[in-house]
Amino acid sequence: MERTGIAAAPGIAIGRAIVKKEENMEIVRRSLEPNQISLEVERFKDCVQQAILELAELKEITEKKVGEEEAKIFEAQQLFLQDPEFVGAIENMIEAEHINAEAATQSVRDQFLAIFESMENEYMRERSADLRDVSQRILRHLLSITQNETAVVDGPQILVVHDLTPSDTAKLDLSITRGFATDIGGRTSHSAIMARTMGIPAVVGLSNVTEEVSDGDLIIVDGSTGNIHIRPEPVVLQEYEDKLRDFQLRQETLAKLIHQSTMTRDGRHVELAANIGNPSDAESAISHGAEAIGLFRTEFLYMGRDDFPSEEEQFASYKSVLETMGNKPVIIRTLDIGGDKELPYLNLPEELNPFLGYRAIRLCLDQTELFKTQLRALLRSSAYGNLRIMYPMIATLDELRKANQVLSEVKQELVDKNISFNHEVQVGIMIEVPAAALVADQLAKHVDFFSIGTNDLIQYTMAADRMNPQVSYLYDPFNPSLLRLIQMVIIAAHREGKWVGMCGEMAGEKLAIPILLGLGLDEFSMGASSILQARHLIKQLDSQKMAKIAEHVLTLSSGQEIKDYIQQEVMR
Amino acid sequence: MERTGIAAAPGIAIGRAIVKKEENMEIVRRSLEPNQISLEVERFKDCVQQAILELAELKEITEKKVGEEEAKIFEAQQLFLQDPEFVGAIENMIEAEHINAEAATQSVRDQFLAIFESMENEYMRERSADLRDVSQRILRHLLSITQNETAVVDGPQILVVHDLTPSDTAKLDLSITRGFATDIGGRTSHSAIMARTMGIPAVVGLSNVTEEVSDGDLIIVDGSTGNIHIRPEPVVLQEYEDKLRDFQLRQETLAKLIHQSTMTRDGRHVELAANIGNPSDAESAISHGAEAIGLFRTEFLYMGRDDFPSEEEQFASYKSVLETMGNKPVIIRTLDIGGDKELPYLNLPEELNPFLGYRAIRLCLDQTELFKTQLRALLRSSAYGNLRIMYPMIATLDELRKANQVLSEVKQELVDKNISFNHEVQVGIMIEVPAAALVADQLAKHVDFFSIGTNDLIQYTMAADRMNPQVSYLYDPFNPSLLRLIQMVIIAAHREGKWVGMCGEMAGEKLAIPILLGLGLDEFSMGASSILQARHLIKQLDSQKMAKIAEHVLTLSSGQEIKDYIQQEVMR
Repeated sequence: MERTGIAAAPGIAIGRAIVKKEENMEIVRRSLEPNQISLEVERFKDCVQQAILELAELKEITEKKVGEEEAKIFEAQQLFLQDPEFVGAIENMIEAEHINAEAATQSVRDQFLAIFESMENEYMRERSADLRDVSQRILRHLLSITQNETAVVDGPQILVVHDLTPSDTAKLDLSITRGFATDIGGRTSHSAIMARTMGIPAVVGLSNVTEEVSDGDLIIVDGSTGNIHIRPEPVVLQEYEDKLRDFQLRQETLAKLIHQSTMTRDGRHVELAANIGNPSDAESAISHGAEAIGLFRTEFLYMGRDDFPSEEEQFASYKSVLETMGNKPVIIRTLDIGGDKELPYLNLPEELNPFLGYRAIRLCLDQTELFKTQLRALLRSSAYGNLRIMYPMIATLDELRKANQVLSEVKQELVDKNISFNHEVQVGIMIEVPAAALVADQLAKHVDFFSIGTNDLIQYTMAADRMNPQVSYLYDPFNPSLLRLIQMVIIAAHREGKWVGMCGEMAGEKLAIPILLGLGLDEFSMGASSILQARHLIKQLDSQKMAKIAEHVLTLSSGQEIKDYIQQEVMR
Repeated sequence: MERTGIAAAPGIAIGRAIVKKEENMEIVRRSLEPNQISLEVERFKDCVQQAILELAELKEITEKKVGEEEAKIFEAQQLFLQDPEFVGAIENMIEAEHINAEAATQSVRDQFLAIFESMENEYMRERSADLRDVSQRILRHLLSITQNETAVVDGPQILVVHDLTPSDTAKLDLSITRGFATDIGGRTSHSAIMARTMGIPAVVGLSNVTEEVSDGDLIIVDGSTGNIHIRPEPVVLQEYEDKLRDFQLRQETLAKLIHQSTMTRDGRHVELAANIGNPSDAESAISHGAEAIGLFRTEFLYMGRDDFPSEEEQFASYKSVLETMGNKPVIIRTLDIGGDKELPYLNLPEELNPFLGYRAIRLCLDQTELFKTQLRALLRSSAYGNLRIMYPMIATLDELRKANQVLSEVKQELVDKNISFNHEVQVGIMIEVPAAALVADQLAKHVDFFSIGTNDLIQYTMAADRMNPQVSYLYDPFNPSLLRLIQMVIIAAHREGKWVGMCGEMAGEKLAIPILLGLGLDEFSMGASSILQARHLIKQLDSQKMAKIAEHVLTLSSGQEIKDYIQQEVMR
């Protein structure tokens, strides 16, 4: 039996199913006698305490197994359980309405969810997933439900679940779990992101796969196509066993490229770099063959806390990445907060169109103390490695001049205080606003490099929010209009002798790489797990020939036409 | 005494103040005896009935004095008073809580306002202004408050009000009211828009002008600079009387240009057209000297109702405008709904970034029946005048091809049914998405004309929502990036022998006109009241010289530099 869902993390996995259906808790509302109330509150508090301990354990496991950043989710969940607004509301309800803790927990959870879900922003939606997870945990304790015992199955396992919650992720035993399949979720859901981070094949959004599969069934997960096979025929199984072997062979081939430099067939070197989100990712970037960090996002320092990070705290983070990378370049992007990424302590007003709003450099140029603290930490760290500083969301030359002016002031302050830093640190900007691409010739005179941020550049150029399913058809990096903008940027930069990178998802796309190489892109920065494949591809390409291919591509009139052409001319 | 607010509608007005402070109603919550309840409900119903009658009257007056579109606001307000959810909630509250109608009205209003104001979109904000207005009206009846009697003042009057509500606007006596000044409001508030529509000078957002002015005070309103003078010194009064005379003389000069064609000094003709929002505006466009309608927005047909307009209803509207304009061209834009303009009966999902969402042609290509009905009505109307059809928000050639395909199908249907229409009707697109501007060369092969929609084009190019005050500094039509895009579009169209217009606000801006003329723009479409000034300016310009000016402008690096340059080179 074959089922098609959403390809969430590439690769093939074959194993026996472990099925975990959605927990169906029956909550009955019971009235309590007055003398039972205080006992019930105590019982509730005990369960909360147990849940907090469990979360601490999950956090520790996740830190080891997945990463520090991923583990933070459990800290956020712990905060819920320590929040008097939430826990206190449940206690009050038990006391005021004389009802059992289960009913009170459910009712308060639903009230909170209603509030969270009426707020249309990503941050609050994430909070509501946490709230569900954490409430479920308390309810399990209250109802003394031990989580479904894992069926005993020999050999490699495929986890088949309704949805993979952060807690489920933490419990995955990577030594036996080869892949997973879920009923719900999309490419950007928590479960999909986790699968890609951990590098295990996954298909999500399969509707009712937990009903169709039983414990012990043989399952094939093809995370590249989004297909799964349930109890496959021998011939299908054979086919996938071959594919899996090919896949593993390919991984071995790629592994040999880890320490090689990225040279085209005709000897042009391009830099393959990694995008990272926190310092602990740097080592993994190196082990995946990164020649540089092309984008180190600094938002992690600012999020999930109650106040701004201090200069010292930032300095320690930046220094740590620079030291890990040795003499390899590290581009650190200044704060790109605002828009859909909120900081509660910044008190930003709600915006009708956050993507067109007060964010990134706009906010930093307005709140210069915030900006200066970060620049000081960055400059100080420049003494410990090969730092490059990058401003996000620059739209006009005026903004760039202002940002450089603030940087000069900070440099002067450091000089005055005799604090050492690299006076020649490279400074660049992201090109992610169409306006910036259109005046790239003017901007190029004032920077050392550009890095094209295609994720946003596509959104603005096409006027399409990529998270909005009704217009996501327009979000296509192969649109000729976008490729022309990219060409403009590269030509303008090269004329001024400056180099151009790209740190959007496009930089790692198989069909895009030949075009970008042909347009003259100097640096490709992508998720670390794509680097070796990109290197493998680029080593087979001739940059002169790709230049001709790119020239022809720019005359084509649709994304599909362009993809077909590359497929046929380059990939055959 | 001088005060500075926001310049809302240009021109100078001098007159005696009529002050209308904010109504301060004291609502006391009273408990009723059970036998009083039904009487109280009756009293409430009577007041609602009276309010409905008043609104009908205001609607009639506004239709005559301002326009049909502006009068619709009172229909919307009437609907509130017939809405069982609102009125019924108040009745229920009187009955359930045994309280007086005033307190119940206030409480239900506040509940509704809280809901409306938690929804972050323009439509709901407008509804909440209506709700305030209509609740105030009921409360006045309940409290038997007759509205402040107008003070008796001789000669020209200046209205000084807290805020100009739609009801206030309807009651303005234009034969004696020369201008107005308000405590609150911005350039896009209801009061400001009304002032511009009626052509009376206004300054809004003066904080507490109603406290500083007394009935009968002499007031000068300078709606061009945003200044008002309260009880001016004789020398100031003299100065403004001179200015007013100059202004009137200038108006007379301009009036002579009404029937002249728009020719530059060196004999190049450009078309000056009007943007209109409903059929009744067409006559006023002609009387303001429009040579064409450059943008007829069709949204009015779809808004403020419960279901889609029929083909016949649309046909009647389009035909009426075409007949009014005789052989003058009329560009009718197909439905540009979605984004911040909602239709309740379309059931659109709420979007995180509505400006980057499901709107205009995206929606029409998805809901083709809706689109076909409009195209059928448009084609049928083409037999009655000089129609041009325009699609909004085209981003890719694919979309244009699809729209043209739907149009061909509709044409074929009409041919099959022997219904007559103009087979050669011109078809064009708005260029308002950066992607479209970047592939204008490809799009030009498939259209008869382009019309550049700068309002949106600037937003997307700069990635800045112009309604968001924290990033509105980026919303500047003089940004070099935007001017370069415009140049690209014009060059691409002219290469294919197609003409290019502009229907954003930029087309009517004094400093922009010389640049646009120099870049080769063929048609300028603007608010009707700006046409004669634009004609006056263009007749003094040399198109060859402006081409050189524009060439230089494109090398400058900021909006301010460009404005200064035009001011100095062209306007001195």
